[in-house]
Order: sequence, then C-alpha cells, then structure tokens
Amino acid sequence: MDRKKVVIIGGVAGGATTAARLRRLDKDAEIIIMEKGDYISYANCGLPYYIGDVIKQREALLLQTPEAMKQRFNIEVRTGNEVLSIQRQEKKVTVKRAADGSQYQEDYDVLVLATGSTPIVPPIKGIQGEGIFTLWNIPDTDRIKTYITEKKPKTAAVIGGGFIGLEMAENLRQVGCQVAVIEMQDQVMTPLDFEMAQLVHENMKLNGVELILSDGVQTFEQVAQTPVPTNRVTLASGRQVEAELVILSIGIKANSSLAKEAGLELNQRGGILVDDYLKTSDESIYAVGDAIEVTEFIEKGKTMIPLAGPANKQARICAGNIAAGFGTVKGNPETYEGTQGTSVAKVFDLTVAATGLNEKALIRMGKKPEVDYFVATISQKSHAGYYPDATTLTMKLLFGLSGKIFGAQIVGVDGVDKRIDVIATAIRLGATATDLKKLELAYAPPYSSAKDPVNMLGFVSENILNGLVRFVPWNGLEKREELAEQAGVPAVTVLDVRESFERMAFAPTDSVHIPFGQLKERLGELDQNQLIVTFCAIGVRAYNAARILMNAGFKHVAVYPGGAGFYRSVF
Amino acid sequence: MDRKKVVIIGGVAGGATTAARLRRLDKDAEIIIMEKGDYISYANCGLPYYIGDVIKQREALLLQTPEAMKQRFNIEVRTGNEVLSIQRQEKKVTVKRAADGSQYQEDYDVLVLATGSTPIVPPIKGIQGEGIFTLWNIPDTDRIKTYITEKKPKTAAVIGGGFIGLEMAENLRQVGCQVAVIEMQDQVMTPLDFEMAQLVHENMKLNGVELILSDGVQTFEQVAQTPVPTNRVTLASGRQVEAELVILSIGIKANSSLAKEAGLELNQRGGILVDDYLKTSDESIYAVGDAIEVTEFIEKGKTMIPLAGPANKQARICAGNIAAGFGTVKGNPETYEGTQGTSVAKVFDLTVAATGLNEKALIRMGKKPEVDYFVATISQKSHAGYYPDATTLTMKLLFGLSGKIFGAQIVGVDGVDKRIDVIATAIRLGATATDLKKLELAYAPPYSSAKDPVNMLGFVSENILNGLVRFVPWNGLEKREELAEQAGVPAVTVLDVRESFERMAFAPTDSVHIPFGQLKERLGELDQNQLIVTFCAIGVRAYNAARILMNAGFKHVAVYPGGAGFYRSVF
Ligand SMILES: Cc1cc2nc3c(=O)[nH]c(=O)nc-3n(C[C@H](O)[C@H](O)[C@H](O)COP(=O)(O)OP(=O)(O)OC[C@H]3O[C@@H](n4cnc5c(N)ncnc54)[C@H](O)[C@@H]3O)c2cc1C
Ligand SMILES: Cc1cc2nc3c(=O)[nH]c(=O)nc-3n(C[C@H](O)[C@H](O)[C@H](O)COP(=O)(O)OP(=O)(O)OC[C@H]3O[C@@H](n4cnc5c(N)ncnc54)[C@H](O)[C@@H]3O)c2cc1C
Ligand SMILES: CC(C)(COP(=O)(O)OP(=O)(O)OC[C@H]1O[C@@H](n2cnc3c(N)ncnc32)[C@H](O)[C@@H]1OP(=O)(O)O)[C@@H](O)C(=O)NCCC(=O)NCCS
Ligand SMILES: CC(C)(COP(=O)(O)OP(=O)(O)OC[C@H]1O[C@@H](n2cnc3c(N)ncnc32)[C@H](O)[C@@H]1OP(=O)(O)O)[C@@H](O)C(=O)NCCC(=O)NCCS
Repeated sequence: MDRKKVVIIGGVAGGATTAARLRRLDKDAEIIIMEKGDYISYANCGLPYYIGDVIKQREALLLQTPEAMKQRFNIEVRTGNEVLSIQRQEKKVTVKRAADGSQYQEDYDVLVLATGSTPIVPPIKGIQGEGIFTLWNIPDTDRIKTYITEKKPKTAAVIGGGFIGLEMAENLRQVGCQVAVIEMQDQVMTPLDFEMAQLVHENMKLNGVELILSDGVQTFEQVAQTPVPTNRVTLASGRQVEAELVILSIGIKANSSLAKEAGLELNQRGGILVDDYLKTSDESIYAVGDAIEVTEFIEKGKTMIPLAGPANKQARICAGNIAAGFGTVKGNPETYEGTQGTSVAKVFDLTVAATGLNEKALIRMGKKPEVDYFVATISQKSHAGYYPDATTLTMKLLFGLSGKIFGAQIVGVDGVDKRIDVIATAIRLGATATDLKKLELAYAPPYSSAKDPVNMLGFVSENILNGLVRFVPWNGLEKREELAEQAGVPAVTVLDVRESFERMAFAPTDSVHIPFGQLKERLGELDQNQLIVTFCAIGVRAYNAARILMNAGFKHVAVYPGGAGFYRSVF
Repeated sequence: MDRKKVVIIGGVAGGATTAARLRRLDKDAEIIIMEKGDYISYANCGLPYYIGDVIKQREALLLQTPEAMKQRFNIEVRTGNEVLSIQRQEKKVTVKRAADGSQYQEDYDVLVLATGSTPIVPPIKGIQGEGIFTLWNIPDTDRIKTYITEKKPKTAAVIGGGFIGLEMAENLRQVGCQVAVIEMQDQVMTPLDFEMAQLVHENMKLNGVELILSDGVQTFEQVAQTPVPTNRVTLASGRQVEAELVILSIGIKANSSLAKEAGLELNQRGGILVDDYLKTSDESIYAVGDAIEVTEFIEKGKTMIPLAGPANKQARICAGNIAAGFGTVKGNPETYEGTQGTSVAKVFDLTVAATGLNEKALIRMGKKPEVDYFVATISQKSHAGYYPDATTLTMKLLFGLSGKIFGAQIVGVDGVDKRIDVIATAIRLGATATDLKKLELAYAPPYSSAKDPVNMLGFVSENILNGLVRFVPWNGLEKREELAEQAGVPAVTVLDVRESFERMAFAPTDSVHIPFGQLKERLGELDQNQLIVTFCAIGVRAYNAARILMNAGFKHVAVYPGGAGFYRSVF
C-alpha cells in the first residue's frame, strides 16, 4: 500500500487523540498536526484551577509536546501553523506560518477537522477594554494569570453562569477576589432545571459570590487605568458593577469557518455535519470534537455538546475509521452513537452533575408532565446516615411512561459524580427507570446505603409508574389553587408529618400538622375531598404517610418531593 | 377478602424491609415480626465503626424501634420471641418468649424466613475463653465495646481476613490496639484475586497491622486473667500470638435449622432453596437474605452471598410477591434475578471493591486464561493527574472471548466505589467489556479524566480482543521460561521503556533499558526471536512501546500490566 497522508487541523483533545490512536493502528501513515497556537495536548479543563492556584505547575497542563509526539509517535506537529483554507478538489490545505506570515500548501489523503470552538465575544461597547478576558487556551490563561499577579485585582465580574464561569468564580474567590456572577438567564448551569439550580445559587451566595440573574451586560466602560484597570459593567436593568477583572464566558461557537468556506455542510449554528462514522459531507474529511453536530443520544435529535469526553471518544473512533479506510485494521468502520451530555462541575462546596435531557428540554419538545414524562425528585444521603459526614444528595430523574429514562440531575456535596455515572451508564445501556432498582451497587457504610440512592430512584419511579405515589411539582405549595383545580377538588391541604421540633425551624405556610406516628389515629381530621399534599424533611415519611392515606381510601394524595430541605433551598 | 396474616421471622435487613414494603402495599394484612433478639432494624454494617468510635452514638445504629413500627406501620414486632419450629401442615409456628421461657403457637397464611446467618465458632480448644468475641449484632457489639472500655486491651488478634475482620482490624487500631490479623488462606479479602490482595496486604502493614497468612488457629489458651484477660493463640505453624482481645470472623453459616427441621429444601451448605419468586419449596413460605441460596448472576450457578444490598432487594420483591398473591397489588409476581456480589470495604487508606466472579472462581470452573477468558489489569489515576490529590486505581477486569464481562476488582484510595458501581451496572445490564469504552461518564478535573478509567478498561479490552495488545500475567516476570515456552521462543526480554531516573528507584531484574522516546531508533538492539515484555510505570508507555514493536514486525510482544507501581506492590 502507498504511504497515506493524514492532516489533522487542531492539536488538542480531538486532534492529538486522533493522531496518537491512528499511529498505534497504522505504522506507515504520514500524520501531520496543524495547530495555529503554540501548544498542543493541553488540559483546557484544568485552566481555571491553574488560575486559582489549585494547580501549581503550569507544566502540569501540558500533556504532550511537539517534540515528544515526533520522538515517540512519529507524528509531525506544526505549531504556529494555521490552516487558512481547504482545497477539497486538490485535497490540499493552505497553511500560514505564524513565525513569518508565509503561506504554503500541504496535500492530504485524509483530513481531520478538530478545530474546536471559540468563546463568543459579542460586539458590546467597551468589551475590548483592559482587564476583560476570555479563558480558552494557554495564552488566555497566561494573560489572566499575569494580570492577577501584577495587578492584584480585588474585584471580579464573571459574565455567564455556565460551568466555566462558575469554575472561574470559585477560582477567583480562591485568589482573594470579590466576585459577581452576571447571568442573563434566571439561573446558572443550564444543564440543571430551575429548581435544581436554586441549590447552586444558595451555595454560591454562602460562599460570598454576588449573583446577578436575569440581567445582561449592555456596556463596559473603563473607569480607572491605575493602579488597576477597572471596568464599570452596566447591565440591562441599569444596575452597575465595577470590577478590576472581568471574565467573559457567555458561550462558544464552533470553529467551522474553514469547513464552511470549503463548502462542507454545516447546521444553522455552524456545527459541521458528520455521518455516523464522523465523516463530513466530503468523503476524505472527518471532523470531531466541539466543532461538530452530534446526535443527542436520548431522543436522537441533533445538537452540539462541547465536552472533552465526547471529543476524545470521537477522536478514537475517527482514528479507527481512518485506519479501516486504509485497510490497516480489519473490521468495519465504527459508528459514534451520539452524545448524552453527561457533565459534572465542582461549584464551591457542591458537585453539580447532569446527564441526558432536562425538563426544560422536554418541555421545549412539547412533552407534558404526567402525560409524556414523570419527575422523581428525591433527597437521599450520600452514604449511610449513621456513618460520619453523610451529606444530602438531591436527585431529579425524568422518565417516560414506558420507563425510558430521559435524564437526571444531581446536586450535592459527596457521591454526586458516582450516581450520575451510574445513571449515565444505565441510560447508555438502555435501562428503564425501574431497572435502577435492580442495580447491585457496592455498599459499605462509608460509601452508600444498602439501598443506594440510585436504587431509591428506581423504587420511586416504579411507584410512580404503578400509581403508588404521586408527587406535586417543586413549586406545588406555591400554586395550590392550580393543583386543586387539576385534581378536581376545591382545595389543597398541606399535611406536615414531621415532629413539632422540626417545625420550629421551618413550617410551610398554611399547613396542617400531624406527626407521622399519629397519622393512623388522626385520619378523621383530614378532609378526603381535598388534595392532601404530604410534607416531611426529605420525602420518605411523606411517602409513607401518602401510602397510609391512599390505603385508607383517600383519593387525592400527593407528596411534596425532596422535603423541607429541598423546599427551603429552592425558595 | 379475608384479612391475611403474614409472620416474618427475623427483624433486621430482610425482615423489617419486607414488613415495611408489605404494609405500604397492603393495608389489611396482619403483619407480625418475630425477632429472637432485643433489637430490630439495626445497622449491622455499622457495628465495627461504633466499636472504633467512628460512629459515636449507639442510637444511630438503631434505625427503627418496635414501637415505631407499630405506631407508624401497624406492624407488630415481637422482640425476644424466638421461633422454635414450623408446623407447615397446620401453618403455625411455635414461639418461645425469652422473658419467661413460655411457648405459644402463632398461625400464618404466609411465612417469611429472614433469619440471616451466624458467625461460625469452630470447636477449637479454648475458643469460649474470656476476651474472645464474635461480632454480629447489638449485644455482641455492646459486649466488645464494654470490654474495650473496661479492660483497655492493648493487643488484639483478628482471626479471619474477610471484610468484617479487616474493618475490625482498622477499628481496633483506631482505639489504640496493636493488631494481628490471622488468616488461613494466603490472602485477605477473598473477593480479590491474589495479586490484587497484595495491595491490601502492603497497606495493612504500612498501618502497623501484623499480617499472618497461610496459618490457622489450633488452640486458644488463657494466659492471664488480670488486669486484662489474655489469650495465647497457637497457630498450625507453631507460631504463637498473645492478644488481650480476640475477634473471630472466620465465616458464617445460614440460620436455616428451622427450615431444615420443617423439611424445606436446603443446599449442602444449609442455604434455603427458593425459586425465582423467592418462594421456598413450601407454597406458603418465602425466604430472603443471608439464609438463602441465590443464583450467581454471571454464570447462573448457585451460591450464597450474604450482603445487605441483596437482602434488602429480595425483601422488597418478596413483599411485592406476597401482596400480589393476596391480590392487593396488580401485576405479576416479580423475579429476583440473582446476585453478582458487588461489594466494597474501606481497609485503612484503601478502598477495596469487587463485582462478579474473580479469576480464582473462573479457574475453579475450569476456564483457562487466554482461551476462555482474558484479564485486563490497568493502573489509572482516580481523576485528572494534573489536579491535586489524584491517586492510583488498580483495576482488574475479567471477560470472555465474546466480550462478556465476568467480573472486576478495584483497589485504590479514591473513586474506587464509583468505578465498581459503573462496572456493576454494566454487568447487570448485559454490557460487554468493549461497551465500557462507550460509556459517557462525567468529567471535570476533580472527578475523572476525559477518558475515565472505566473507558480505559473498555479500550484495553477491545485491544486485547482485537489482538492489538497482549499482557503477561502479573507474575510473568517471575516465570520467564514458562512465558518463553508458551510463546515458542527461546527466551524473554524484559524491556523497560521508562527514563533512567525512574529506574533508579527500582528496575526489574535482567531488564533491557531503552527509554520510550528512543525506541523507534533503537529497535535493532532487540532480538525479534525473543518474547519482548514491555514495562513502564503504569502500563501506558509499555502499551505504546508494544504497538511500536508490533508495527515494526515483532511477532512476540506482550505488556507487563499495571507497570512498576503494581509490580512493586505485588512483590
Ligand atoms: C476552561 C475550560 C474548561 C473546560 N472544562 C471541561 C470539563 O471540565 N469537562 C469537559 O468535558 N470539558 C471541558 N471543557 C471543554 C473541552 O476542553 C472541549 O470540549 C475539548 O477540548 C474539545 O476538543 P476539540 O479537539 O474539539 O477542541 P480543542 O481542544 O479546543 O482544540 C482545538 C484546537 O484547534 C486549533 N485550531 C482551530 N482552528 C485552527 C486552524 N484553522 N488551524 C490550525 N489550528 C486550528 C485551536 O487552536 C485549538 O488548539 C473545558 C474547556 C475550557 C476552555
Ligand atoms: C459486622 C457486620 C458488618 C457488615 N457489613 C456489611 C457491609 O458493609 N455491606 C453489606 O452489604 N453487608 C454487610 N453485612 C452483612 C449484612 O448485614 C447482612 O447481609 C444482612 O444483614 C442480612 O440480612 P438478613 O435479614 O438476612 O439477616 P439479619 O440482618 O442478620 O437478620 C436476621 C435476624 O433474624 C433473627 N432470627 C434468626 N433466627 C430466628 C428465630 N428462629 N426466631 C426469631 N428471630 C430469628 C436474628 O436474631 C436476626 O436479628 C455486615 C454484617 C455484619 C455482621
Ligand atoms: C495526550 C494525548 C495525546 C494522549 O492520547 P492517547 O495516547 O490516545 O491517550 P492516553 O494517554 O489517555 O492513553 C490511552 C491509550 O492507552 C491505553 N491504555 C491506557 N491505560 C493502559 C494500561 N494500563 N495498559 C495498557 N494500555 C493502556 C488505552 O487503551 C488507549 O489506547 P488506545 O486508544 O489505542 O486503545 C491526548 O489525550 C491529549 O492530547 N490530551 C489532552 C487534551 C485534552 O484531552 N483536553 C481536554 C481534557 S482536559
Ligand atoms: C428501617 C427499615 C425498616 C426501613 O424500611 P423501608 O421503609 O422499606 O426503607 P427506607 O426507609 O429505606 O425507604 C425506602 C422506601 O422509601 C421510598 N423513598 C425513598 N426516598 C423517597 C423520597 N425521597 N420520596 C418518596 N419516596 C421515597 C422508596 O421508594 C421505598 O419505598 P418502596 O419500597 O415502597 O418503594 C429497613 O430498611 C431496615 O430495617 N433497615 C435496617 C437493617 C439493615 O438494612 N441492615 C443492613 C444494612 S446496615
């Protein structure tokens, strides 16, 4: 076979991984990585932590060097080489050397686009001002780090409450800044539904972050130059925030202009279209990573999900398919089966994680609660309650009438990543919500409970599907009339089954109090013609109370999910 | 319908859970729990930690009281009531009251055996001596706790290196004892294979535990009475150990004598036989928990697996099937699909976890390595290496030629429980080893890597199945002649591809040294007619080196799994 030539544009997650795997599969192919920046194979995801001094060594972020790629893998890496255009007909790319601005052409048999994405910098007045940064790569990081070291800013504004924004908020607190987070939506962390995000808001405030929601930046204005450049951020509401350091993290766009100019098919948001084998509309061009459109795993829609795990997986598949195309590995090309968007972030004391679709997405798709999908929101301990340091997990599971899992969200301190990974695995393998009850998960007191929180989600889901329990929405206590109307009853009774001492700290307004232990005897005090919403600390007694009421013939019974702890965080 | 009467024997994991779930499903059934001890619903699994003062409050261990069960669930709990016999014909049990020794009969429509198991106390001379204890329930715990408080023992011997033995070893160190662990086998923690157990041995020794393996107790002899009762433990080898406190944890037996005397079918080890619905050979009698034989989930053999998670799951299914039998819930009875033995334990600094079958079990079944099963042993970081406090996970995956996962074992400091849960979920849902590569697990630097260690197991397994990599066994470097013979070559070259400085701390005997970066140029130094075993720090460079050799036409190449870190812990 002729020696084949593979040119890869982009030398980080998608690009470097494609190259490394391809070399392991194919000794002969000529592999060239074109990277416009000075660095390859760096840990984008670690950048906020290096700024926060949590990661001390800059070198720790650089996982491979061009020299090592050459020496170890015989992969030629050309940093400072930007691909300007693709000549598809001739199978060539035009490249510009940063060093001297000179240009040259390089031909390819196969081209891989691993060009990633870029933070959006909208044309807002003053946005180019000093002290305003985006964070995406090593030079960005160096700039911010140097600024912090030299100017020692005391105030910072983070524009955008996505995971990178919040990681930056935490790391800027870490280096001593007062931090304001400004977010246009009414919540941070879009993978979460509104009520789950409230838990995060609460914790951010506890950690001294000023949280400005539902408000967007109108202008930046430099109000001081020395000793520290200071920007006045004016918001849509008229509110003004002054900050000596501004981080913009309001979204990203795919780096697909090369693809576009070359006439490859893109979606409306600029995502490069690929087939199941990660091939673009050109037979000889693959694309992976942030720049592509992917199949959303749950409902098989099309979407874009810029995460490192998917980028790496796509890269490995892409390398295999290139090698299969060259005939250097046996077997069929492999398909990429889509991205479910499993993600996790550390936000101050909390871990926040999600997988699959959230309720907002279901509603956007036109699905209706209790008709097309159910919600199970539960609070459970991260490990056995009697073992020290158990903390509360708030878990939300969305599933269909057939039990199909649409998605899950978890917020807590400990054990969040474990539970989201188990649910993500269950989703990937086609399990139903009820199947979660069967999972045989590892139990010893420091790690879990004999019924793991994920099992509990399975139990609760099964109960919902079997009509053994119904939940009101998280904001049900605030819209009792609506609930009553839906149930076809005149009114709602909120029945608090906690003990008196528990009610001293907090009790829901207009609630009837019957401690759980007395419920059996005091059923007569309740009006069967009302919707009884049971309420307790975490939801377990409320569920048991609901069973007692239903068993006693009450027709209209529902549980407030997650209990007082959840309620108080949300409101 | 008539009011039905359910008698449950045993009031802890299996019994109490059956009762609680049954009540939620069936308001009418009369439910009576017979418990011979004074406590129900206690946290057996927490007992070692209460002894070690990690759990401070004794009450924390008692999850429900008989009074609360009555008041809340209308479940009658009779503690101090031992069932002496079952009169199956008459559907009655004979019960003895501990309080006054009186006996009575109680009839039932349905009987549930949740009698659990009991620690084995073999007829060894002196075993009844003062200061020798088993740990199984609250009275045992009180006895040990009182003994420790009053006598302040300074030396302890734990007989048996199972998970309870090791938890006790840790907790006795915690309260200041010198601890010796005596184990008849050549390793502790039987769910682990020998080489994985070495990691545990190493850590126990680091934590000042004296570890005596392959030696069994012959006699106990009381050598002092005051100030602290002291036993001299004489071992089979003749070795003697003196200890002021002895914990026996050498195994358990099912509490099935009731079942046996009533003529129910048992297996040879005394496990009560049940069908898929958890019904015994008597239509009216169910059994759950430690006392029953279960289907081993992987290969569908029969086994006994005394763990709290399975007991709780069985109990919930049992309750549902009873209610279905009574007609109080709709739907078919539910089957219990078997136990895979997922378990985890904290052993000093380590977390040790397993699921499914280990290699010893596969070998007992007559399966042969590289013929019937493959082993992937890898070392990976618990989270991104560049983020602080990443620790090493050593993971062993066993799988068949079709990719079927037989089992997994993981030892490490952090993130062990998460990875075993993901693999346990994959097994339960029928995933293959290769499927592990697809799992979309949550990644941010504090939690994982873009390629999670479980994904890595998937990659490596796929490579093994596709012939892209071969591993030598963990003890391969010690039996080079055998390896050479199997490969049909005259000799083995161990090729260390680490850097010189890494070899200073340790280098395998008789190894050739070519740093990975120089390998491409120095291939000529290697003898193609030998089996080249590549070796590095954790296995990744060794794998890449192996690919280079194989790509260069070397026919006999294998990787030493897990690298120097693993090797040094094992030997
Ligand atoms: C601060 C930060 C934190 C993150 N944290 C996480 C996290 O915790 N978890 C997670 O899953 N993901 C995280 N991500 C996202 C993750 O890093 C990306 O999804 C992933 O790197 C995408 O890989 P990629 O190969 O598509 O693009 P990139 O890794 O961005 O690489 C693209 C490369 O292509 C180069 N390039 C572009 N155009 C050209 C051209 N014309 N010529 C030559 N070179 C070109 C670019 O210079 C760039 O180096 C984070 C990202 C950032 C920035
Ligand atoms: C110290 C310790 C630590 C453990 N740690 C873990 C762990 O970390 N993870 C894990 O998964 N598992 C652990 N286990 C095992 C777990 O506790 C058991 O698997 C589980 O409790 C079994 O439930 P069961 O209902 O079958 O039996 P049990 O919970 O033992 O209950 C059986 C009950 O039946 C009663 N009984 C028996 N015979 C009669 C009779 N004739 N009449 C009336 N009553 C009777 C007994 O008194 C007993 O109370 C641990 C066990 C112990 C002892
Ligand atoms: C550094 C980089 C080039 C490495 O690529 P790589 O060699 O494919 O990846 P890894 O070092 O993770 O190793 C994975 C390979 O080692 C193998 N492997 C892992 N552990 C192993 C072990 N103990 N024994 C044998 N093989 C092992 C895997 O099977 C896999 O090989 P395969 O793809 O051929 O099956 C690439 O990951 C990169 O550039 N990363 C940084 C960018 C990035 O991902 N950023 C976003 C996240 S911060
Ligand atoms: C205490 C004990 C009687 C409780 O039994 P239980 O009520 O079945 O169990 P839990 O308190 O764990 O609650 C589980 C129930 O609450 C439901 N639930 C849990 N969280 C919920 C929430 N937030 N909202 C609504 N329902 C919830 C579950 O669906 C389940 O009900 P179901 O079985 O009817 O579906 C029993 O577990 C016991 O005796 N345990 C101690 C013994 C033991 O297990 N020892 C070994 C381990 S140390």
